[in-house]
Amino acid sequence: MGDLTDLFAPETVAVVGATEREGSVGRAITENLIRDFDGEVVPVNPNYDEVLGLSCVHDVGDSDADLAVVVVPAGIAVDVVRNAGKAGIRNVVVITAGFGETGSEGATRERELRDAAEEYDLNLVGPNCLGIISTPNGMNATFAPENALPGSLSFMSQSGAFVTAVLDWANEEGIGFKDVVSVGNKAVLDEADFVRHWGDDEGTDVVIGYLEGIDDGRAFIETARDVTEDTPVVIVKSGRTSAGAQAASSHTGAIAGSDAAYEAGLDQAGVVRAESVQELFDSARILSGQPLPRNDSVAIITNAGGPGVMATDAVGDSDLEMAEFSESTLDELAETMPDEANIYNPIDTIGDADVGRFRTALDLALADENVGAAVVLSAPTAVLDYDDLAETIVESQAEHGTPVAACLMGGGRAEKAADVLSEAGIPSYFDPARAVDSLDSLARYRRISEREYAAPTEFDVDREAAHEVLSRVEERGENRLGVEAMELFDAYGIPTPAGEIVDSPADALAAAEEIEDPVVMKIVSPDILHKSDIGGVKVGVEIEDVYDAYEDLVSRARNYQPDAAILGVQVQELLDVDAGVETIVGMNRDPQFGPLLMFGLGGIFVEIMEDTTFRVAPVSEPEARAMTDEIDAAPLLRGARGRDPVDRDGIVETIQRLSQLVTDFPAILELDINPLVALPEGVQAVDVRLTVDPEKLRS
Amino acid sequence: MGDLTDLFAPETVAVVGATEREGSVGRAITENLIRDFDGEVVPVNPNYDEVLGLSCVHDVGDSDADLAVVVVPAGIAVDVVRNAGKAGIRNVVVITAGFGETGSEGATRERELRDAAEEYDLNLVGPNCLGIISTPNGMNATFAPENALPGSLSFMSQSGAFVTAVLDWANEEGIGFKDVVSVGNKAVLDEADFVRHWGDDEGTDVVIGYLEGIDDGRAFIETARDVTEDTPVVIVKSGRTSAGAQAASSHTGAIAGSDAAYEAGLDQAGVVRAESVQELFDSARILSGQPLPRNDSVAIITNAGGPGVMATDAVGDSDLEMAEFSESTLDELAETMPDEANIYNPIDTIGDADVGRFRTALDLALADENVGAAVVLSAPTAVLDYDDLAETIVESQAEHGTPVAACLMGGGRAEKAADVLSEAGIPSYFDPARAVDSLDSLARYRRISEREYAAPTEFDVDREAAHEVLSRVEERGENRLGVEAMELFDAYGIPTPAGEIVDSPADALAAAEEIEDPVVMKIVSPDILHKSDIGGVKVGVEIEDVYDAYEDLVSRARNYQPDAAILGVQVQELLDVDAGVETIVGMNRDPQFGPLLMFGLGGIFVEIMEDTTFRVAPVSEPEARAMTDEIDAAPLLRGARGRDPVDRDGIVETIQRLSQLVTDFPAILELDINPLVALPEGVQAVDVRLTVDPEKLRS
Repeated sequence: MGDLTDLFAPETVAVVGATEREGSVGRAITENLIRDFDGEVVPVNPNYDEVLGLSCVHDVGDSDADLAVVVVPAGIAVDVVRNAGKAGIRNVVVITAGFGETGSEGATRERELRDAAEEYDLNLVGPNCLGIISTPNGMNATFAPENALPGSLSFMSQSGAFVTAVLDWANEEGIGFKDVVSVGNKAVLDEADFVRHWGDDEGTDVVIGYLEGIDDGRAFIETARDVTEDTPVVIVKSGRTSAGAQAASSHTGAIAGSDAAYEAGLDQAGVVRAESVQELFDSARILSGQPLPRNDSVAIITNAGGPGVMATDAVGDSDLEMAEFSESTLDELAETMPDEANIYNPIDTIGDADVGRFRTALDLALADENVGAAVVLSAPTAVLDYDDLAETIVESQAEHGTPVAACLMGGGRAEKAADVLSEAGIPSYFDPARAVDSLDSLARYRRISEREYAAPTEFDVDREAAHEVLSRVEERGENRLGVEAMELFDAYGIPTPAGEIVDSPADALAAAEEIEDPVVMKIVSPDILHKSDIGGVKVGVEIEDVYDAYEDLVSRARNYQPDAAILGVQVQELLDVDAGVETIVGMNRDPQFGPLLMFGLGGIFVEIMEDTTFRVAPVSEPEARAMTDEIDAAPLLRGARGRDPVDRDGIVETIQRLSQLVTDFPAILELDINPLVALPEGVQAVDVRLTVDPEKLRS
Repeated sequence: MGDLTDLFAPETVAVVGATEREGSVGRAITENLIRDFDGEVVPVNPNYDEVLGLSCVHDVGDSDADLAVVVVPAGIAVDVVRNAGKAGIRNVVVITAGFGETGSEGATRERELRDAAEEYDLNLVGPNCLGIISTPNGMNATFAPENALPGSLSFMSQSGAFVTAVLDWANEEGIGFKDVVSVGNKAVLDEADFVRHWGDDEGTDVVIGYLEGIDDGRAFIETARDVTEDTPVVIVKSGRTSAGAQAASSHTGAIAGSDAAYEAGLDQAGVVRAESVQELFDSARILSGQPLPRNDSVAIITNAGGPGVMATDAVGDSDLEMAEFSESTLDELAETMPDEANIYNPIDTIGDADVGRFRTALDLALADENVGAAVVLSAPTAVLDYDDLAETIVESQAEHGTPVAACLMGGGRAEKAADVLSEAGIPSYFDPARAVDSLDSLARYRRISEREYAAPTEFDVDREAAHEVLSRVEERGENRLGVEAMELFDAYGIPTPAGEIVDSPADALAAAEEIEDPVVMKIVSPDILHKSDIGGVKVGVEIEDVYDAYEDLVSRARNYQPDAAILGVQVQELLDVDAGVETIVGMNRDPQFGPLLMFGLGGIFVEIMEDTTFRVAPVSEPEARAMTDEIDAAPLLRGARGRDPVDRDGIVETIQRLSQLVTDFPAILELDINPLVALPEGVQAVDVRLTVDPEKLRS
C-alpha cells in the first residue's frame, strides 16, 4: 500500500462491470463519472463493445486505467482485482458486497481479496462500499445520486447510506468536500490510512468521519497524533452507549471494544469527538472557516439582554470562559457606547444599536488581547440591517484575525446575512448555544494542536523476575493470581508495604518481628475471593498475637472451604490509611486498543460513584499525571479540607510503571492494584489481582 | 386581578399615545393593530383628532375600550393607567420603559403603578415590554415588525428582543402561536398568572417561556403543578451557570437565586426545563403535535444501519430505552422483511426498502404494546420516494395513535416531506439525535402528567420548645447556634444519640454512666468553629476517663481561644459509623423559592464530589424519598457491596421533619444536620449548625 494521491486523482478510471442496465449500480457509477469527471472513463465488460456511448474494453488489463472501480458480482470480484493488479493498476475501489459482512464464504473471499491487494501492493477501498469522490477533478466514483460540492472537508464514512444522506443535505447547505470515501469493510485501506493521507493533503483543511469501529487502535493513535498537530480530525464514533454498541455490533459484525477505550484512544489521538451529526458538521464548518483562538475567553456583543444571557449560559456550559476586558477596552467602550449600554461582557449595545455601533463594539472586543473569540448576537430591530451587519462582521473578523461566530436571530431576514457570513467561513445559527458550542470546538482543537506528546519513560525493571512470577499461573488450574504475585511490583519498582507470605506460625512471627509494629494478616488462597467475608483478614495484630492469629486464619479458611488451596498467610505492615487516600490503578485489554489503564479513587463510597479515568497504554509521564487531575475527587489528592496532600508523583510513577509492565507482557489480560494507598510520604500497592493468559506467556 | 380572557380577546383596544410620527413605538403599535385586529382600534392622544385614518379620542376614558395599550412617556404613564381604571378598563399593557429597570425614581414609579393596578383591580402587563399578541382575533398589540402565525403554543418572554427574534424565525419555520406576551418588569401580572390562564385556555396546547427569574417561587410551583397535569409547560430559565447568573442579574437587576433552587423548583412545578432555544422549540413542537407515549420504549425503523446506530446511541443518552419487540411482532417482521434485514430493534429494512416495506415495519412496530414511540429514519435511495414516505408515516401514526418522530435525511429532497410531516405534527430533523431528543421530551412530560402530588405530612411536634431553643440566639452576640441547639431535634422528633451537654466533670461522668458504653466528648462553644483542630473532640472515651477528659477539653479550649464562650461539653453515645453511612441533610433560604432542602452523602470523600440533591420545602413523603434515590451514591443506602441496607425510612422521615421545622420557622436561615448517621436500625442526627434571624423570630 502506497501513496493515495492517484487513488483520488487518477487520469483514467476503469469501471469494471459497467453496463447500461437501468437501475444497476454499474450504470449509476458510469453515469456519475461521465457527468463530471475531468479524466477518461473506460467501461470494462466482456459483454459489450460500447457502454453509454463510450467504447468498452473486455478486460480491465486493457483499460490503461490508474484506478479501477469494481462492481462485478462477488464471485468474480477477486479475480478482477488480481487482473487489475497484474495490469499494473495500483488503485482499486471494490463496490461489490458479499464479503466479510456476510457468512463464512464471504469472510474467505475477503481474505483472498486482502491477499491479492498485498501481492500487487494495491490501494484498495472497500469492499461493500458506495465508492469514492474527489471534487478537484470532478470524480464521482460512487453510485450516490449526487456529486459533492467542492470544498476543503475530507470525509470518510463506515456507512454508505450516511454518505448519500450527507451529500444530499450538504449540497443544500452549501457545504463542500475535497474527498469523500465510503470505507466499506476496510479490508485493506482503513481510517488510519485516510487520516494519514489527508493530513498531508493540501486541499484538505479538516478531516471528518463517521466510524463504527477502529481496527487497530494503537496504530490509529500514532497516525492521528501526527496529523492532528496541523489538521483537525472530527469523528462521530457510534456505539457510544451500550444500546448503540449492541446495534453497531449487529450491524458490522465486529466485536465492540469498550467505549471507555474509544473515548481515551480518540482523545490520545487528538481527535475531536462529536456526539451527533449536528455537532460533527458544526465543528467541521468552523474549523475549516475560522482561525484558532489565542485563548479560551469569549466576548459576546449583542443588542439584546436576554439572548446575551442565554449565550453566557452556553459559555458557562462549555470549556470556554467569559473574557474580562482590559481597562483600556472598558474605557473606550464607555466612551463610545450609550450610557444605558452594558460595557462589561456580554456587551449590550442596547436595542437602538445600528450596524456602526455593533462594529465599534466588535472591533474593540477583537482588539483586546484578553479576547480569544467573539459571538455577535442580534435580535431584529427597525434600525439594524442584517445584511450590512453580516458584511461588517466579515470585515472586522478579517481585520483582526480572531475567530467569530454569529447568531443573527431571525428567519427570512437573516438568510442572506447567513450566506454572506458562511461565504467568509463564519457560522451563523438561530440558537446562541450553537454559536458558542462551535467556538468551543475551535478552542478544543487549539489545545490539541498545542499538545506536546512525550515518549513513555523507560524504567529500569527486572523483566525476568516478572516473567517468573507470571509463570506461576502455569502451575495453577486457573489463570488468576492474587497477593502471591506482589513480587511483580518489586520487579517493576512499584512500592509495596513491608511484609511477606509465610506458611507457618513461626515464620509469621519472624516476619512480624521484622516489621516491628502491629501488622495486617491475610489468608492467601486463589480459591477464596472474598477474604473479609470469612474473617480471613486481621488488621492491627500485635506481635504477641501473631502466632495464634496465623493458626486462626488458616483454620477459618479450612472450615469455610475445605478444598481451597491455601498458599499461606500474608503478614504486612499496617498503613495509616486515614492519613492518605485509597486509590485504584487497573488495566484491562481492549480488543481494538490493547491495554487500557484505569485510575480512580478506592473505597466503596467512591467506587460506587465510578469516579475513574482511562488511557491506552503505554502512557507518558504527562499523560499519567493528567489522569490524577481528571477524576472528580482530584482535590482530595491535592490535600482538600485541611488534609496533607498525598504523594502524587508516586501515583504518577506507579501508573507509568504499570503501563510498562502491561505493555511488556501481553499475557497480562487484567490487573488491579486495589488499593494503591497514597500517603503524604509515598504510595504503597497493598493488594493485587490479575489474570494471565499462559499461552501468550510462552510465545 | 381577575380572569385574563379579555386581556387576550378584547373587542376594543385603545392605544394611549397613538401617533403618526415615523419610527415611533406609538405608530408601530397602532399600525400593527389596524393591519390584523378583528376588533376596533381607538387611538388616544390629546393632540390629535385623527391618527392613521382612525378618529382619535383625547382621553382614555372616552375610548370605550376593554384593553388599553399605554405608550405615553413614563412621567404620565401612571396617571393614564389610573384614568383607564377609573373608566372601567380592566386590562392594561404598559409598553413604556423607565420604571424598576432604571434608578430609584423608576422604582417609585413602578410602586405607584402597582398601587394603581391594585386599586382598580387591573390585569396589567409590563411595564417596559414589547406588548402582547393573540392570533385568534389577529391582535398584534406590540411594536414587533411581524405578527405571529396562528397556532397552539402560548409564549411568554422576559426579553422583548427574544420575542421579535422568535416571531421572525417562527414565521419562516411555520410555527404558530395562540398568545404571545412580553412580560416586561412583571409589576403586576407574572409568569404564574399566564401559566394559570393558559392552563385553562382551550386554544393553548403547550405553554413555553423564556424567564430570567421567577418572583414567587412557591406560588409558581403551586400554580404550575396544577396546570402541568394537562398542559405541558416548557421553559428556558437563563442564568443557569454562574457566568449566566451574573449576566442575568446585571440585565434585570434582580438578585439571582441559586440555580439549584430553580432546578428543584421548576422540577417540582412539573415544568420541562429546556437548556437552549433549540431544545425549547423542539420540545414544544412535538408536545403540541404528538400524543404522549404509553411507555419509555422506542422503536427505530430505518433503511440504513449506520444512522440506525447513531439513533440508538441517542436513545442510550436519553431517559428512553430501546423497545424489545414481542414474539409475535418479531414473527411478523421475520415473515415480511427480507432475509438480510435486521428485525430486532433498530429494524433495518435495508437499502432496497421501498415505502411499502417501511410502512409494514412501522405498522408492526406501532402495533406492539411494548413500543411507546417510534423514529422513522431514512437515507436517500433510488427506490424510496420521500414524499410518499412522509404521507405513509402520517397515516400510520394517525392510525395507531402512537407518537412518531422522523429523520428523513437529506437536503432538498426532504423539504416537501418535512412540510407534510410538520403539518401532521410530526417533527423531522436531519440529525437522528434531535428526533430522539424530541421523543425524550414527550416521555418526560408523560411522567410529569402522571405524577400524583401528595400533601406534606404534618408531624406532631413541639413548636414552643423549638421556639425556645431558637430564641437562645437572642442572648448571643451573633446568630449562629451549634450542638447546644440539638433539642430542636427532640422538639421535632428527629432522633439524636443519647447524651447531653454538661458543665462540670461530675455531670459529664453521670451522663457517661447513663450511656454505659464509651462515649464521644466535644467542647461546646459558638466561638470555636473547628473543634477537631484544637483537639476539642474525643472519641471512644471510657467511663473511667470521662472526668479527666472533661477537664482536658476545657483547658485546651481556654488555651486555644481565651475569650471563647464555653457552654460546656457534650457527652454523646458513640455510634458505629462504619456500619452505616454518613449523610447530610441541610437547608438554606433562597430569595425566590424560600427554604431549599439538600440531601447528600457525608464524609470528605463524597462531599468533595458534591453528590447532592435539592427540593423546595415543604416536601411530601414521596418527594423526600425521591431525594434518597437521586444521589449517585444511592446504592450505598440500599446496601451495596454486601453491606446491610440503612434505614432509608428514617432518612426520609428526617428530611420531612426538617422540612416542617424550616417551614414553621422562617427565622431559620440555614441549617445543616451533618452528619445524620444512617444505620441499619435507625438514623441519628449527630451534629447541627444553624443560623437564625432573631427579628423574624419575634414576628
